[in-house]
Amino acid sequence: MADYRKMWEDLGMDVDTHDQLCEVLPQAFGDVYLSQENRPESMDYYNFVVAEIHGVRPAELIEHQKKGGKVFGTFCVYVPDEIVFAADAIATGLCGGSQFWVPGGEKVLPTNTCPLIKASVGARLDRTCPFFRIADMYVGETTCDGKKKAWEILAEDVPVHVMDLPQMKREKDVCSWADEIRTFKKVVEDFTGNEITAEKLAASIHMINNKRKALERLYAFRKNDKLPISGKDVLLISQIAFYDDPTRFAEMTNKLCDELEQRVADGISVFPEGTKRIMLTGTPLAIPNWKIHNLVETSGGAVVCEEMCTGTRYFERLVDETKTTVDEQIDALAERYMGINCACFTPNHGRIDDIIRLAKEYKVDGVIDVNLKFCSLYDVEGYTVERELQKAGIPVLGIETDYVDSDAQQLRTRISAFIEMLGA
Amino acid sequence: MADYRKMWEDLGMDVDTHDQLCEVLPQAFGDVYLSQENRPESMDYYNFVVAEIHGVRPAELIEHQKKGGKVFGTFCVYVPDEIVFAADAIATGLCGGSQFWVPGGEKVLPTNTCPLIKASVGARLDRTCPFFRIADMYVGETTCDGKKKAWEILAEDVPVHVMDLPQMKREKDVCSWADEIRTFKKVVEDFTGNEITAEKLAASIHMINNKRKALERLYAFRKNDKLPISGKDVLLISQIAFYDDPTRFAEMTNKLCDELEQRVADGISVFPEGTKRIMLTGTPLAIPNWKIHNLVETSGGAVVCEEMCTGTRYFERLVDETKTTVDEQIDALAERYMGINCACFTPNHGRIDDIIRLAKEYKVDGVIDVNLKFCSLYDVEGYTVERELQKAGIPVLGIETDYVDSDAQQLRTRISAFIEMLGA
Repeated sequence: MADYRKMWEDLGMDVDTHDQLCEVLPQAFGDVYLSQENRPESMDYYNFVVAEIHGVRPAELIEHQKKGGKVFGTFCVYVPDEIVFAADAIATGLCGGSQFWVPGGEKVLPTNTCPLIKASVGARLDRTCPFFRIADMYVGETTCDGKKKAWEILAEDVPVHVMDLPQMKREKDVCSWADEIRTFKKVVEDFTGNEITAEKLAASIHMINNKRKALERLYAFRKNDKLPISGKDVLLISQIAFYDDPTRFAEMTNKLCDELEQRVADGISVFPEGTKRIMLTGTPLAIPNWKIHNLVETSGGAVVCEEMCTGTRYFERLVDETKTTVDEQIDALAERYMGINCACFTPNHGRIDDIIRLAKEYKVDGVIDVNLKFCSLYDVEGYTVERELQKAGIPVLGIETDYVDSDAQQLRTRISAFIEMLGA
Repeated sequence: MADYRKMWEDLGMDVDTHDQLCEVLPQAFGDVYLSQENRPESMDYYNFVVAEIHGVRPAELIEHQKKGGKVFGTFCVYVPDEIVFAADAIATGLCGGSQFWVPGGEKVLPTNTCPLIKASVGARLDRTCPFFRIADMYVGETTCDGKKKAWEILAEDVPVHVMDLPQMKREKDVCSWADEIRTFKKVVEDFTGNEITAEKLAASIHMINNKRKALERLYAFRKNDKLPISGKDVLLISQIAFYDDPTRFAEMTNKLCDELEQRVADGISVFPEGTKRIMLTGTPLAIPNWKIHNLVETSGGAVVCEEMCTGTRYFERLVDETKTTVDEQIDALAERYMGINCACFTPNHGRIDDIIRLAKEYKVDGVIDVNLKFCSLYDVEGYTVERELQKAGIPVLGIETDYVDSDAQQLRTRISAFIEMLGA
């Protein structure tokens, strides 16, 4: 890894503590990823991005800021990146996927909070995440109780803009969300000093749609009987999508897809025949949370789809590109984003429909409903998800976990038994 | 207690299981309430209501239904009862305050759910609460993740109407809430077949305001140096306010207040001099949850105020009675209800302001921030509440508890130490 110490110091990071993370991450990545056989060569790009995750992209963001550009840190797939990019600003994901950050979050948050929120707040307060240090403004949303209240703590140091996501999906709620996007546009314009014109917004909608199309194309390979790429590799790509430059990301992902096309033509599979096809559904898997994928894919299974924020919810359905005024474009954005079926909505039948549809499209043998501990929304909805999947004749295993490794052995036992049962 | 077995059977209740509750409740009530010395005589009414809590009022509700009237079950202080009563229907609270109902809720909800939600769902599913059996429709709201998702489970048996409470308090959010109230009015009109006219709504606003005034008057006695009534007696009255006929409740509470006025004139106090004045803040205390009040008032303290849904949030501020059209009346309702400072809002500075104001008004010596386990909202906000109270020089103790008795001894130790510290 290149030496970014000076940059991290300039960002006011706690470099010594951060070093501890830098020491363990390569080992973890090596164990989970580099040990795989027969990976597509184009995975080199994503390997590089992970190896330099707190270096290369942060350096680009800082470069952007030096030229007068702003950086917005976001936490959720409902926040429309299009608005940010249309103001010549950059939207980026923030840290939150490792146990490393959890104790820092527990200093101010209840232990009974989901690890994603605790890790995010910890990464910020402990100054061990460059993205949190770089972002000029954080954009929060009201998607869950824990996050909603965590913004208040984060807002004590850095500007936070909160978007109030409606909790239902009636027609008027789509209008309310469009209205929130309009407010957000104004905030972004004021903060950046750049006007968001119809042309600029059209360009950014096109750019983000291209990212979605690249991911859609990538995911389509997982519908093949022979899988040219592992589930954990696709997860990694989904995770990087939240941080990378959208145009470059789409390019590199399409390049990978070209290679996968050749693999399919050549009949290459990274899994032996008879490997069970598993779909994951539930809470997001923020980088470097690779736990469940690794367990599944070292227990006789292949993850072929994630009905998750780090998965289909992120890229399915495009924003309508035919609109020509900012007002119409914002309505189109609202329409697309409100089509995501997060458990924060009530009712949320759409998610059940999605899961059953995806299970068919990806020809899954079984579904694992995997939820982060203390996420009430997905936990309560899991009851309905599991019941409806059973009704539909799709085997399902419910799992609750967090970022610690201590439950790995127990999870392996349960996941192995589930996969074995699928073969019976 | 009169024999309501036949009525409970007709309601389809699980009478045998319900009998277990009927057996323990009088003992618990006797221990906590009837053992108090020098209680106001007018407490007899509330004693009677509790003794017959699953009998008298349910019988009235059934009588109302026999005459063609509807009953709406509600869970939250944001739901405007005024709309329900204006359609000649009755709004009533539902069960949810006892550990008795929790295991039933845990059959379908995660253990990591707050006991209030688990108890409510359990009371419904186990058919051990007459109010849940009687209500023709439940009215839910989006005030927290757990409740929001619980409605989906409840809605499988009974009509549920959910009101989407905005999560912020900007001007447009008050308008959104007014819009939700308009939708609710339409639902209530359709469901009851009764039109809500300006006259009827004016009358119900007046009636509910009278209830608020009675509670306001009652609470004012707690600002006295000499307390003519115990905190637990006032808690009981606050709890009964959710179930009782509003007009009768206001009458009986005013009658009690007349007696308290005389007591003040006579210099009567139910606590010895030097008793420490404690305010509780946090999550609601649904009947028969008297745990913390009982601990405080048997440990050298007196509870003089509850900044809770079962407390000041329920009655402070009146609905403007000068409006003459339904539209204006609904705006006035939205204005009043959106003035309640629940932790479900972000930000929620208003609650901190309320607590500090109330601490002064009620001359409190210390505040206990008491939160139900797994309530993320109040738990996270507790961090800010406690910090701001410390800044304001008001001693504060943070407590997390649920409905089980197993932590009572540990809580007693902490509460006693806190009260002792206040005297130092």
